[in-house]
Amino acid sequence: MTETRWIYSFDEGTRDDRELLGGKGAGLAEMTRMGLPVPPGFTVTTAACRAYLEAGEVLPDGLWDEVLRQLRRVEKGMERRFGDPEHPLLVSVRSGAKFSMPGMMNTVLNLGLNEKSVRGLARASGDERFAHDAHRRLIQMYGDVVYGVPSRRFEEVLEESRERCGAAADSELPVEELQELGRRFREIVQEEAGRPVPEDPEEQLRGAVEAVFASWNIKRARDYREHHGIPHDLGTAANVQAMVFGNSGPDSASGVVFTRNPATGAKELYGEFLPNAQGEDVVAGIRTPRPIRELRDDFPEAYRELEDVCRTLDGHYREMQDIEFTVERGRLWILQTRAGKRTSKAAVVIASDMVEEGLIDERTAVLRVTPAQVEVLLHPRFEGRAEEQAADQGELVARGLGASPGAAVGRAVFDADTAEAWGKEGERVILVRPETTPDDVHGFLQATGVLTQRGGMTSHAAIVSRGLGIPAVVGCEAIRVDSKARTFTADGIRIKEGDFLSVDGASGKVYRGELPLALPSLEDEEELLNLLLWADQHRKLGVRANADTPRDAARARFFGAEGIGLCRTEHMFLAEDRLPAVRRMILARNSEERARALQELLPFQREDFEGVFREMDGLPVIVRLIDPPLHEFLPDRDELVAQVSHLRAQDGGGDELAEREALLEAVDRMTETNPMLGLRGVRLGLLHPEIVEMQVRAIMEAASGLVREGLDPHPEIMIPLVAVSEELRRVRERLEATARSVQEEWGVEVPYRLGTMIELPRACLVARDLAEDAEFFSFGTNDLTQMTYGISRDDAEGRFLAHYVDEGVMPANPFWSLDREGVGELMRVALERGREARADLEVGVCGEHGGDPDSIEFAHELGLDYVSCSPYRIPVARLAAAHAALGAVERDI
Amino acid sequence: MTETRWIYSFDEGTRDDRELLGGKGAGLAEMTRMGLPVPPGFTVTTAACRAYLEAGEVLPDGLWDEVLRQLRRVEKGMERRFGDPEHPLLVSVRSGAKFSMPGMMNTVLNLGLNEKSVRGLARASGDERFAHDAHRRLIQMYGDVVYGVPSRRFEEVLEESRERCGAAADSELPVEELQELGRRFREIVQEEAGRPVPEDPEEQLRGAVEAVFASWNIKRARDYREHHGIPHDLGTAANVQAMVFGNSGPDSASGVVFTRNPATGAKELYGEFLPNAQGEDVVAGIRTPRPIRELRDDFPEAYRELEDVCRTLDGHYREMQDIEFTVERGRLWILQTRAGKRTSKAAVVIASDMVEEGLIDERTAVLRVTPAQVEVLLHPRFEGRAEEQAADQGELVARGLGASPGAAVGRAVFDADTAEAWGKEGERVILVRPETTPDDVHGFLQATGVLTQRGGMTSHAAIVSRGLGIPAVVGCEAIRVDSKARTFTADGIRIKEGDFLSVDGASGKVYRGELPLALPSLEDEEELLNLLLWADQHRKLGVRANADTPRDAARARFFGAEGIGLCRTEHMFLAEDRLPAVRRMILARNSEERARALQELLPFQREDFEGVFREMDGLPVIVRLIDPPLHEFLPDRDELVAQVSHLRAQDGGGDELAEREALLEAVDRMTETNPMLGLRGVRLGLLHPEIVEMQVRAIMEAASGLVREGLDPHPEIMIPLVAVSEELRRVRERLEATARSVQEEWGVEVPYRLGTMIELPRACLVARDLAEDAEFFSFGTNDLTQMTYGISRDDAEGRFLAHYVDEGVMPANPFWSLDREGVGELMRVALERGREARADLEVGVCGEHGGDPDSIEFAHELGLDYVSCSPYRIPVARLAAAHAALGAVERDI
Repeated sequence: MTETRWIYSFDEGTRDDRELLGGKGAGLAEMTRMGLPVPPGFTVTTAACRAYLEAGEVLPDGLWDEVLRQLRRVEKGMERRFGDPEHPLLVSVRSGAKFSMPGMMNTVLNLGLNEKSVRGLARASGDERFAHDAHRRLIQMYGDVVYGVPSRRFEEVLEESRERCGAAADSELPVEELQELGRRFREIVQEEAGRPVPEDPEEQLRGAVEAVFASWNIKRARDYREHHGIPHDLGTAANVQAMVFGNSGPDSASGVVFTRNPATGAKELYGEFLPNAQGEDVVAGIRTPRPIRELRDDFPEAYRELEDVCRTLDGHYREMQDIEFTVERGRLWILQTRAGKRTSKAAVVIASDMVEEGLIDERTAVLRVTPAQVEVLLHPRFEGRAEEQAADQGELVARGLGASPGAAVGRAVFDADTAEAWGKEGERVILVRPETTPDDVHGFLQATGVLTQRGGMTSHAAIVSRGLGIPAVVGCEAIRVDSKARTFTADGIRIKEGDFLSVDGASGKVYRGELPLALPSLEDEEELLNLLLWADQHRKLGVRANADTPRDAARARFFGAEGIGLCRTEHMFLAEDRLPAVRRMILARNSEERARALQELLPFQREDFEGVFREMDGLPVIVRLIDPPLHEFLPDRDELVAQVSHLRAQDGGGDELAEREALLEAVDRMTETNPMLGLRGVRLGLLHPEIVEMQVRAIMEAASGLVREGLDPHPEIMIPLVAVSEELRRVRERLEATARSVQEEWGVEVPYRLGTMIELPRACLVARDLAEDAEFFSFGTNDLTQMTYGISRDDAEGRFLAHYVDEGVMPANPFWSLDREGVGELMRVALERGREARADLEVGVCGEHGGDPDSIEFAHELGLDYVSCSPYRIPVARLAAAHAALGAVERDI
Repeated sequence: MTETRWIYSFDEGTRDDRELLGGKGAGLAEMTRMGLPVPPGFTVTTAACRAYLEAGEVLPDGLWDEVLRQLRRVEKGMERRFGDPEHPLLVSVRSGAKFSMPGMMNTVLNLGLNEKSVRGLARASGDERFAHDAHRRLIQMYGDVVYGVPSRRFEEVLEESRERCGAAADSELPVEELQELGRRFREIVQEEAGRPVPEDPEEQLRGAVEAVFASWNIKRARDYREHHGIPHDLGTAANVQAMVFGNSGPDSASGVVFTRNPATGAKELYGEFLPNAQGEDVVAGIRTPRPIRELRDDFPEAYRELEDVCRTLDGHYREMQDIEFTVERGRLWILQTRAGKRTSKAAVVIASDMVEEGLIDERTAVLRVTPAQVEVLLHPRFEGRAEEQAADQGELVARGLGASPGAAVGRAVFDADTAEAWGKEGERVILVRPETTPDDVHGFLQATGVLTQRGGMTSHAAIVSRGLGIPAVVGCEAIRVDSKARTFTADGIRIKEGDFLSVDGASGKVYRGELPLALPSLEDEEELLNLLLWADQHRKLGVRANADTPRDAARARFFGAEGIGLCRTEHMFLAEDRLPAVRRMILARNSEERARALQELLPFQREDFEGVFREMDGLPVIVRLIDPPLHEFLPDRDELVAQVSHLRAQDGGGDELAEREALLEAVDRMTETNPMLGLRGVRLGLLHPEIVEMQVRAIMEAASGLVREGLDPHPEIMIPLVAVSEELRRVRERLEATARSVQEEWGVEVPYRLGTMIELPRACLVARDLAEDAEFFSFGTNDLTQMTYGISRDDAEGRFLAHYVDEGVMPANPFWSLDREGVGELMRVALERGREARADLEVGVCGEHGGDPDSIEFAHELGLDYVSCSPYRIPVARLAAAHAALGAVERDI
């Protein structure tokens, strides 16, 4: 097909002609070419549409003659004549662009009917109802699509008819009423459009083709393309096809069938049909369709043929197909085939099965499953339609930020102590707090889910929950927590302690009551594990985990992590048994006291690291030295104020009062206006070198012990929040001295490296200098995004960021999907400059973006060495990295 | 002088040979060449020093022979012989590098004395004390400088001697004691160095020259060069010069004279002398020197000659000289001349006078005064040595951050109401608070100074003080304010209400008591005004003011501002009469309430802008739309909590309770973890467009009114905190619509522009897009620095930034002096990209950096259009901009 032609008969095109014929046209052509029973027809091309639109809505010269010529061929194939008053051929005109735009553009059915031929049709079909119903549908669709008559005008009249006749559905209307409706509809068209639906069938057809072309530019279609990134200059094709009727009597039917089970992926026909009905009726849901296997009983011939068609198409397209069919007087017709939507589970099973069946290769299988599908498989979720049903019953209480994905069900409790007590008794609990502090951590450990009124995606609650893998909804501003009364209210609903709640840590939705849970387990997902191994063969990016505990490390390794990209040490400080020593360290009045407290912490830290290194034996573990401001380890100020005033009221609060007062004084002294930009990261390391020296000692002692055991630990020490190369230089000198002396004391050699987190814009700019002192870089894209935009994620997400994304001020939340234009440019600069100074500099991304497929694609394009993400996202990242390497486009169009 | 020679006689060099001969050597050579009475001598060059050091501390071949040859010439000139036991020539060896490094390197005097010649000197001078004192000084200096004997060893012995003899000063020691001292000193040298001071004069000389060369690399010299940016490879010269003695009897004297008055700049000799004394004695301050005019009485001949010398040198160098002289037995000798240090006042007067005298041109005059000197002239300050004396008396209470320069004296008050009440009664008051909030602003208006315990350079107290031009010390963590007791304590000192305090808002020092003030007034500084006009002819950068009120605008215009670069509108919201309406706006429960509150604010804003535009008639005024988070306009949370609990305790707090509760609820709802990165700037404008629409309406109505009056206002509307081009695009559309409708309503045309602040790293990167919607950019370098470094100035300055600068982690505080490497690169990128999209884009800097000379130099180099700074710094900026254009190096070396 090299010359420019405006029209192609269905037997001329192939599946590869989507650009010219549109998706639907290419599918019909392919099936025709394969000899499948497709009603004959032809496609007016997208090129014709473009020419029509460019010329100011005028059909190109010669096009109409060619339409008529093609129409003659269809008449021949169907042995009926278009416009024949006795035995009329009816045709449909359907739009179909290169990319599917479901419901966006227009369709007109039953073209060719008029006052005369409707009677012929009635006679020929022996079904007067059918003929008049088809006629009034034509008038309605034509009026709507071609003339733009508001469809409610028709609906109102239809509604009146049904009431008058006491009919529950249109199909119950008597013939006379249908005739009357046709009359009324014609009046409406005349009133609204000032002209009637043409009686001349060819004029009808021409109007319908032009209307389909014009529909390319209607607002909803443009908006859809904007949203999905589809170019505006493609145009749509118009498919003219002989009508067949599944409502031609008891030996007719319409239905939809999938070549495989779209829920489970099992290799079996799946679908439904309605006897004596049109395709629309199956979708409309007025009558209950019957399962496809029953088709075998009523239409054994057609069913066998359909089985063959399904097998053929599934094998031909090497993909599960979603097929529309009609049985007209016992004869099977195929009206459409396309790749079928499926569940995540089915996507994986089908891809895996097709490899086994020899239909596709492993590479194709990898591309057939999206990272988003893998993600869904990895978290506990609510069963089937449980959320929908709960919402229908008014049990959706509120919606906050989904801060730690997964679904959780448990009883509401309002403080950490209760959470701990109930949890230890085996009760599932959801910890509900206005916001959380380090004092609440023991409650998290026993909770199955967390819900907070305030705080963003990096609030304490969010971080701790993600770290522990507990589903959490934070910043749920619509609820009002009354901790004292042990209740919260939202939108008129009041939840008290002990009431059941169900929270979805992905969507942020909170329900009252116990929703049924579906618990996934990767161990059982053999197909997924295979798929990931295939993915691994294609990806260039390494995949590491963010893991702070031996348990997380083990999980990460099981999920396929090739190391730990971020082991945060401050979470270790937050554990209940260390917090007193941490606080003594912070409150130390002299270096002696501080040294004593640090000495207490050393064995804890050593033990923490030992466990993680042991799990990751042979693999690198990047340990980030302490990062948050020290005041984060102190109790909440409001609570301290309350405690102090309470203790003062009692006669002589004694030691406890003194301790609380000292804490309050420290909190006040250390509180920062903008803690994110305050005394944290390397700044702490320079001001209080003894803290990071203790950490490095713990790291090196833990590693030394394992080396002695014969294991192979690879600690990598990471300095956070560096802005100035001198910070790194100085801290490095001290830490290397510590590392050296530990190795000397233990008489072993530990292969370790020292690097820095790149999370400030300035660090990107001075990366050349930094790389002189750093053996590796890890982009902390969360903080880097915060600084580059000047946006605090905690504060922004609930306040204006959602609004920004909704309103299109930003195309996406930059904390979810990496901002390539701004943050990305800084990363590119850092990478280039860093590698100028040190060619073998290892560079990765840690933080939330490390698990986002779009950001992973960017990391691949940049040429980073690895991404690091939470253990649960590792399979997602493995697949996304493979997709990036294979150049897959993630857009769902 | 093209060939390489190691040595130059004083009569061979000129002032231009500083590189080779060092500053001192070049000065001595120049004076010798001019025929002034300089004791003969010669300079061993810096090249010799370099050769000596490179060779591992070995003098180059032939050098020593040349020294001895030159020595013979000196002997001839002085008619004495070096080492002659009867009539010995004594010489000094003094270091002197290209750049002055005062006190950093070494000097040895009285070389040529030994056991024998000391007796000859005694006889020849007829003064045994003098001879033995000279000898013990030689031993002491030689031991110290050449052998490195700790000088305290000598000092201890000297101390014992003085005690034993009951002598208050060395000059009171009897001859016998001086002889004994010489003996003891020789013993010390032998003990410590293991060898004696050489008896051979030539060996002495050689040791001294080598010691001077070697002193180039001692630690304090290296540190000094590091600090002042002087290269390490220059080397020092060694000047060998015949000694003359001002302590040769009553017809001898030593002194220092300035060719002009270094305090006032007046054209008169200024200085002091001591009869029968050596140069060191004048400096040492043991005897009180006499004013130089009295020299005329005692030494009329020498005085006349000195007057001639001063006139000659002042005219010759075209610069005020600081001259050391000695009269030996009635004969005047000049030992050194160099440019004299002077007060700021004197610098300006001298530069101006010299232009009048035809000595220098205007360009040179401009370069002779540093921006820092101009700055000092513009703020009230404490008189003369008042601070020193107060500190000596233990009245220095504490030191905080100097947040708003100038000195202030007043009585301590501890709340805004008292400040207002006392201030209105005419009392000068210093408002002392733990920290301040908008509720305190009425107190600021009546205060002469502000002192806070907490907060940084951009805390509320700091910003409001700078805005009002009130001296302020903030973040004074050493004090503990007890607002209830109305006292504060620091370091054992307790200040109560009504006690006098004196605060220096530049140095951050706080004194108890009333220090005397010197009040400058630019109106009287005719010379300065002239100098600034000369500066204006050379600078390329425009200079605008940051001014929020008509008063500031008027002052700015008087100081030479060419427009307003930043008019902040939020300060208008903080005024006491608007705050209630502002709060009603914030607390509004619906858009009607909000509209009503905004309607109340509109006339206030209009009036504010009208006043500013009127003052700046004909000049551009950039108005920044509201920037800070709205919660900044709400009261302090702790105070609200206290008020609420107090009102609750009273039976039925009524309306007031309800209002306070509503405020508290709003504060809690709106409080942000990191407000700097929160809901502010353009984000507010997008979420609450009605606020910025009101502001634009006020701006345009004010300007329209003035246009009707026949004036020429140039409002420029600036959108803050833009990160994404879509933010600017959307807000711009709304604001332009408002601007259009106001002009239509008023039937006038107002020339206005719309631009954006560039203060986020991302804005710099997407500047090309932003420039499509912005007619001007203004760099908000304060926020840009905060984001680029990830440092909150408020939190950092008192906590770790000072430490960083002290320890050299950062070369300077990036909030004072613009970081060219990081922030500067982002600015360069923004400028380039912005001008790509819009060639005539106007780009300036507003914020603190706009008044910093080093940052102004950078702005000039970048090619910005203007800088904008506080009114008081405008003269500084005008001069600094001229210096930048003239390529002056600001380093004071």
